[in-house]
Amino acid sequence: MDINELKKKVYDANLELVGRGLVIYTWGNVSGIDREKGLIAIKPRGIEYDDLEWQDISVTDLDGNVVDDNPLKPSVDLDYHIAMYRAFREIGGIAHTHSVYATVFSQAVKPIPCFGTTHADHFYGEIPCLPYLEEEKVKENYEFHAGVQITEYFEEHQTDPNHMRAVLCGGHGPFTWGKDADEAVEFAVILEEVAKMAYRTISLGGSSLLPAHMLDKHYLRKYGKDSYFYQTKNQ
Amino acid sequence: MDINELKKKVYDANLELVGRGLVIYTWGNVSGIDREKGLIAIKPRGIEYDDLEWQDISVTDLDGNVVDDNPLKPSVDLDYHIAMYRAFREIGGIAHTHSVYATVFSQAVKPIPCFGTTHADHFYGEIPCLPYLEEEKVKENYEFHAGVQITEYFEEHQTDPNHMRAVLCGGHGPFTWGKDADEAVEFAVILEEVAKMAYRTISLGGSSLLPAHMLDKHYLRKYGKDSYFYQTKNQ
Amino acid sequence: MDINELKKKVYDANLELVGRGLVIYTWGNVSGIDREKGLIAIKPRGIEYDDLEWQDISVTDLDGNVVDDNPLKPSVDLDYHIAMYRAFREIGGIAHTHSVYATVFSQAVKPIPCFGTTHADHFYGEIPCLPYLEEEKVKENYEFHAGVQITEYFEEHQTDPNHMRAVLCGGHGPFTWGKDADEAVEFAVILEEVAKMAYRTISLGGSSLLPAHMLDKHYLRKYGKDSYFYQTKNQ
Amino acid sequence: MDINELKKKVYDANLELVGRGLVIYTWGNVSGIDREKGLIAIKPRGIEYDDLEWQDISVTDLDGNVVDDNPLKPSVDLDYHIAMYRAFREIGGIAHTHSVYATVFSQAVKPIPCFGTTHADHFYGEIPCLPYLEEEKVKENYEFHAGVQITEYFEEHQTDPNHMRAVLCGGHGPFTWGKDADEAVEFAVILEEVAKMAYRTISLGGSSLLPAHMLDKHYLRKYGKDSYFYQTKNQ
Repeated sequence: MDINELKKKVYDANLELVGRGLVIYTWGNVSGIDREKGLIAIKPRGIEYDDLEWQDISVTDLDGNVVDDNPLKPSVDLDYHIAMYRAFREIGGIAHTHSVYATVFSQAVKPIPCFGTTHADHFYGEIPCLPYLEEEKVKENYEFHAGVQITEYFEEHQTDPNHMRAVLCGGHGPFTWGKDADEAVEFAVILEEVAKMAYRTISLGGSSLLPAHMLDKHYLRKYGKDSYFYQTKNQ
Repeated sequence: MDINELKKKVYDANLELVGRGLVIYTWGNVSGIDREKGLIAIKPRGIEYDDLEWQDISVTDLDGNVVDDNPLKPSVDLDYHIAMYRAFREIGGIAHTHSVYATVFSQAVKPIPCFGTTHADHFYGEIPCLPYLEEEKVKENYEFHAGVQITEYFEEHQTDPNHMRAVLCGGHGPFTWGKDADEAVEFAVILEEVAKMAYRTISLGGSSLLPAHMLDKHYLRKYGKDSYFYQTKNQ
Repeated sequence: MDINELKKKVYDANLELVGRGLVIYTWGNVSGIDREKGLIAIKPRGIEYDDLEWQDISVTDLDGNVVDDNPLKPSVDLDYHIAMYRAFREIGGIAHTHSVYATVFSQAVKPIPCFGTTHADHFYGEIPCLPYLEEEKVKENYEFHAGVQITEYFEEHQTDPNHMRAVLCGGHGPFTWGKDADEAVEFAVILEEVAKMAYRTISLGGSSLLPAHMLDKHYLRKYGKDSYFYQTKNQ
Repeated sequence: MDINELKKKVYDANLELVGRGLVIYTWGNVSGIDREKGLIAIKPRGIEYDDLEWQDISVTDLDGNVVDDNPLKPSVDLDYHIAMYRAFREIGGIAHTHSVYATVFSQAVKPIPCFGTTHADHFYGEIPCLPYLEEEKVKENYEFHAGVQITEYFEEHQTDPNHMRAVLCGGHGPFTWGKDADEAVEFAVILEEVAKMAYRTISLGGSSLLPAHMLDKHYLRKYGKDSYFYQTKNQ
């Protein structure tokens, strides 16, 4: 893909976060990667969405070096994205938001239990929440260590990032990902709906998790090898 | 009715779910039936509402056979709809959503108690919530057994589907129905409002149910044999 | 005022309920009265707001007799309005909604405590909630007795309807009023905001009421004899 | 700056409160100050936002004397603004709203704990809530004493208004400020989001505050002397 095409797609995905009500002002950021070229396109730091143009999207390599003549610096969260692109080899886009309900679980440092099929349709089990990052790591290089904390967690817990496309950072907020920037945003939107439902299920006194056989059925009919949920028009 | 007319009505009813904020992406589905022809029109599976055109609506018979040259497959939830059309002989439309508050009661596997006249104006008593479907039925033929679970519940509990036009599937979400697809959607919208009010009434510590004499009055002045609530313009 | 002018104003006030998100479909109703002529204009029963035209507004006298050639019947809640217009001699408009938070307090059969100045700016103290109407009264003539229940409550408790412009009917929902239909709707909107804040204050563990000296200050700087809050442009 | 320019900016900032859903009718007010001229521009009292034109904005000196030929009186809350402009020498704009979640903490007379980085990105620690103002002060000169209560609180607690740009008045609601009227409104919007998240974090049983090292990192990367969050386009 032409790098400007990627910048435009990443720009559109960033604005979709605004349209879906998941971010305001400068909050959040979306990136996409061109795996062949090894280039990441990401929202520039500290620029409000209202002021953003597609040319402003930063382009870096997987070491974080800017490789584009756009003078704007990339998102301060770039190192989170790099860590995930390095470890999660099949993903093509990442979204970070401060959407309210997902952030509330992050602030309470609690995972999102799987209470229903809306959750099971998109996330294969409990959505993990990482602990607060340790003081020395925050002081030494916050964003780098915070990114590595995510990927190490997935490795240690043998969680497959292709079937759990979201994580909550303790005290911070959610990251989601997918095959491209658009799908990363779609999972950010769905995560917020799922978090909202889980929050209210807990408030209502719901306590039993969705049985494993229903979780399997719903997730696998969409994303398993014998899936039969999706189809495409005009094939 | 011409089958294309039915497809257009079912298409409009599906989009109404989006306009009312009850579904996003591919979630949910609405169907309508032509009782004379024995044909069901229903949303195709896994197609986003934004991409839907009226021609995409699937048409099947009451055995689930596609009888239309539209190549798209019907909703994966078709068997739910068929079970209800077979057992609930007077209904003409069915809507399924993942609307938040109705889904929260489903996830908590709790019925929606009748706390007020907003509920009593539309649903004649507590809105039932079915238990999780058993593992063997999920594995054997999920959607078929899930549909039958609904109709068997109504029969066993002698619940009249003409006066209780909604059900919650445990761990899943709501189905509603009515005389046609439009009315099914209207009950889906109202169910969500009623669920929202019930959730908050419980949170506020409300504990007494609406007395039976008020439930009767409100429901029957709208839907009883001596009803006096509705009227029609330009008769 | 010309009766058609009143009908148009009442029509606009009814649609304002929709615009403010307080009603859907056929829910709720607004009326206005011409005190000189002794005529009430009120939403017709069972007509959806989307289908309403100003000519459809019903006109009745204070005994409930229709005095207009519009064939539509007045709201089923007409007798509530008549009871209040008879007893609350200074009011000129009444609004009834099923707005969520006010209805939730009605369903929990709890008054809305005065926790803050937003409440005190508009309602002079706790907003009362009446008990469920007794069975015999519901069966004999529901809407008539329900209206009288409100006015008797105000008389018995020596509550001044000119300083408490709202009431919650137990199990049902709110009525508000004001100098005309527009102001009745404005109080319906504000009641909903105040109810929302009170609900959440209780959820947050707030337990102390606004002190009397702050309630007095805020209410009286707006509505007392030495009020200094409002002013008018272009006088 | 020309005083009409200031009036226009303050007018726009007031309308931004409406656009962001933080106020309705006549609620709230925004002001801005020209420090060189010693002049304050502020919303006039008791005028609905829908009726407001930029010429209606009142202009006063720091003693509250109107110095403009606009006949409308300034906001009844003018004395709050004056007290803050006198004590907080570096601020250029102030916003007052009745936004729901911030008001709910005010009504519960509870500060907003710092649970997450969304909070830490904008407010350097717990957002204070003042006690109810004493009866004698309310009766003697409410708005004056209420303003002084804020500035005395900040002085006594050695809270720096340049790093804590919000306060909750017990039983009333929030005030926020910034370098100009626009930034004051931006902090009002963010305060509401932060209050909403804190409310729900508490509801979810979240109990641990964001660790100090994360609070420092997030606040200081935006507003500390070595900040690296913001950048400007087209410099």
